[in-house]
Amino acid sequence: MSLLRKSVNSMPDHSNLDPSGSLVEQFLLEPIASGPLDGLSFTVKDNIDIASRKTSYGNPTWRDRHPAPQYNALCVDQLLAAGGHCVGKVVADEFTYSLDGESQYFGTPRNAKAPNRIPGGSSSGSVASVANGVSDFSIGTDSGGSIRVPASLCGVWGMRPSLHRISEAGVLPFMPSVSTVGVIASSHEQLNSVVRVLLRSNARPAAPLKRILVLSDAMETADDPVRAAAEVALNEISHRTGVDLQTVSFAQIVGDDTPLSDCNENALRVLQSLEFQNTVGSWIENNAPEIGTSFSMAYENVRHLDRHEAINCLDLCERFFEAIQAVMISGTVICFPTTPVIAPLKNTLNSMEAVLDFYGRTMTITAFSGVGRLPEISAPLLTVDGCPVGLSFAAGHYQDEFLLSAVKKMLGS
Amino acid sequence: MSLLRKSVNSMPDHSNLDPSGSLVEQFLLEPIASGPLDGLSFTVKDNIDIASRKTSYGNPTWRDRHPAPQYNALCVDQLLAAGGHCVGKVVADEFTYSLDGESQYFGTPRNAKAPNRIPGGSSSGSVASVANGVSDFSIGTDSGGSIRVPASLCGVWGMRPSLHRISEAGVLPFMPSVSTVGVIASSHEQLNSVVRVLLRSNARPAAPLKRILVLSDAMETADDPVRAAAEVALNEISHRTGVDLQTVSFAQIVGDDTPLSDCNENALRVLQSLEFQNTVGSWIENNAPEIGTSFSMAYENVRHLDRHEAINCLDLCERFFEAIQAVMISGTVICFPTTPVIAPLKNTLNSMEAVLDFYGRTMTITAFSGVGRLPEISAPLLTVDGCPVGLSFAAGHYQDEFLLSAVKKMLGS
Repeated sequence: MSLLRKSVNSMPDHSNLDPSGSLVEQFLLEPIASGPLDGLSFTVKDNIDIASRKTSYGNPTWRDRHPAPQYNALCVDQLLAAGGHCVGKVVADEFTYSLDGESQYFGTPRNAKAPNRIPGGSSSGSVASVANGVSDFSIGTDSGGSIRVPASLCGVWGMRPSLHRISEAGVLPFMPSVSTVGVIASSHEQLNSVVRVLLRSNARPAAPLKRILVLSDAMETADDPVRAAAEVALNEISHRTGVDLQTVSFAQIVGDDTPLSDCNENALRVLQSLEFQNTVGSWIENNAPEIGTSFSMAYENVRHLDRHEAINCLDLCERFFEAIQAVMISGTVICFPTTPVIAPLKNTLNSMEAVLDFYGRTMTITAFSGVGRLPEISAPLLTVDGCPVGLSFAAGHYQDEFLLSAVKKMLGS
Repeated sequence: MSLLRKSVNSMPDHSNLDPSGSLVEQFLLEPIASGPLDGLSFTVKDNIDIASRKTSYGNPTWRDRHPAPQYNALCVDQLLAAGGHCVGKVVADEFTYSLDGESQYFGTPRNAKAPNRIPGGSSSGSVASVANGVSDFSIGTDSGGSIRVPASLCGVWGMRPSLHRISEAGVLPFMPSVSTVGVIASSHEQLNSVVRVLLRSNARPAAPLKRILVLSDAMETADDPVRAAAEVALNEISHRTGVDLQTVSFAQIVGDDTPLSDCNENALRVLQSLEFQNTVGSWIENNAPEIGTSFSMAYENVRHLDRHEAINCLDLCERFFEAIQAVMISGTVICFPTTPVIAPLKNTLNSMEAVLDFYGRTMTITAFSGVGRLPEISAPLLTVDGCPVGLSFAAGHYQDEFLLSAVKKMLGS
């Protein structure tokens, strides 16, 4: 495979040099020690620092105004110290503030299993590099679904670990109460190896799987064929493990009549906007960078958020977190489709109605683990209309190792 | 009280305008709503954003090269929305990377109860503003003890909540796996009110106090008179609550012969240096700022850290965290002197031997809650040679509300 370094500030032509469209820059960082990742290649999302190479954050002005970092992000060094080798930096959506993966500046990475469809974002390049065989695994970040959504839409494994279990040193600040570093891989086995390196997991045996919950509102949010495919897969899992499926609604978890959509609309989405004002919004207002059309539309909502009114979302986030914690006791996995839809066709998210439907329904589901600070794995188990869609498994906060072993058991792998 | 805005880049003269020496800038931010903090004034450490005012991070070049932020840090807005009013920004040690509170650029805030002694840092101005009556409470940050140490040395209340329970949006990035936003106050009652606002705690009753542990290595690290005073206070607490004291060593917690000093020397201190390279070190290398003598000495160690070797500290941090978690079950409080010493006299931390003794012994104690991600309260309960020193109480990760109520019960207040 011969992939040349591409110019960053012009619209790249992926057709020849990098058929995956995932790479921003190609290079080789050798391992610094031997370990469980010996022989495995990885790519790094372009909001995670690589020493001496500019971090673009998906925006050309950000890239131009910030010098190259002096150090690799701590998570990158962890992977190199475990035997992995890094083969390049990959495309991120602008300021990682998107779920569609169509970057105006860095192109749209290829959805390997559905090439006429979007890959999803914002870890679009990470997922595409794995799905197209450019690397064995990739590291990205996830706040509102930025690992889980493209993993679902491209048919690879993706995990967002528990909030703050992986160091964010050298990762550009985004939404401190929400953002996590996570992993994309092509198999459960590799996902497990990489995540355990980053979590520094010991060999302590995880709790046994006792309860499988199915989040009913998430199932109802999905398109009929996605829900039907999820039901088939979940029944197989129940049969395989001998553990009954228990349906639970978000209202039952919270103990009132709150719909799942509140997790996003009145809690996580508002918190994200508040924190984005601090971490990136302030820089944008002070620097007036060039910004893309699609980000510009999203940013208008952030910019006009009334902080005084919005701050009440913090109480709701805390209340939802506590309610979810109380349900997600040891031995419990909760399941739902990662996304309510298969990947939309390219260039179809161009009306406000289409955008609102895709983002609204998708984040209704993804916000659950966000508010719950839960580890979540999207497994490429479902196929609808010939396109991949993920089935998600989440466990309690800090129960990452249990989740990895429970999913292995549930899939009989 | 008439306190004028001071010039930041010259050595300030505190003698007349601000006898506390704590203020960098005085102003009034009115509350944005009424709430539990009605009528209470607060100050903000100068690594936490206030809209339209430059954040210095304790360094003049940082201040000059960064425009004023557009938004208040989220924690500041939470306090304003709960009825508090902000009266100014206060001194922080350079890049908050110190425990002594003697800033070459912003002066040494006054230790109200021991004016010939240092106040401790890095939240020196926060603590001094409370101890000298400039504000009712203050918010600061704590990574290696930056709230707890000055609270101990100046005789006020200080709390470092569980890691990541308070939003860091708008707080300058320091050590993402270690740093917390926390509170300094003049009474347990006010500390409790302010912390509960920031944590968005609900009214759910906390677990009852069941076990009081005493961390023996921390007691042994303290000067004899500090240990003796702590023993008297702890025996009173045991008598008052009817709960026996149980002595435990760090080796017993970890299950081998690890000394408490490993928490700092081989774990937290190394992790801090690794993360500081990413968050501030890279900026220093790229910008060659003016830096002070004392910070310069500390930074040399950070700069020459071998990341490849240092990265093993992550495994130790995780192992210690898990061991501490296993002991700090519901209903458990662990106690120890906050600092091993009363405040050193001013201008005595000027030999390598003195610096190593103060930092080495102090961080041997403070690193315990750092590695454990524990909430810790330093209470101004002890007096040695007429000077204050704190007694600390820590609880399990995320058991902040339990800790607040347990400490209230233990002190009979």
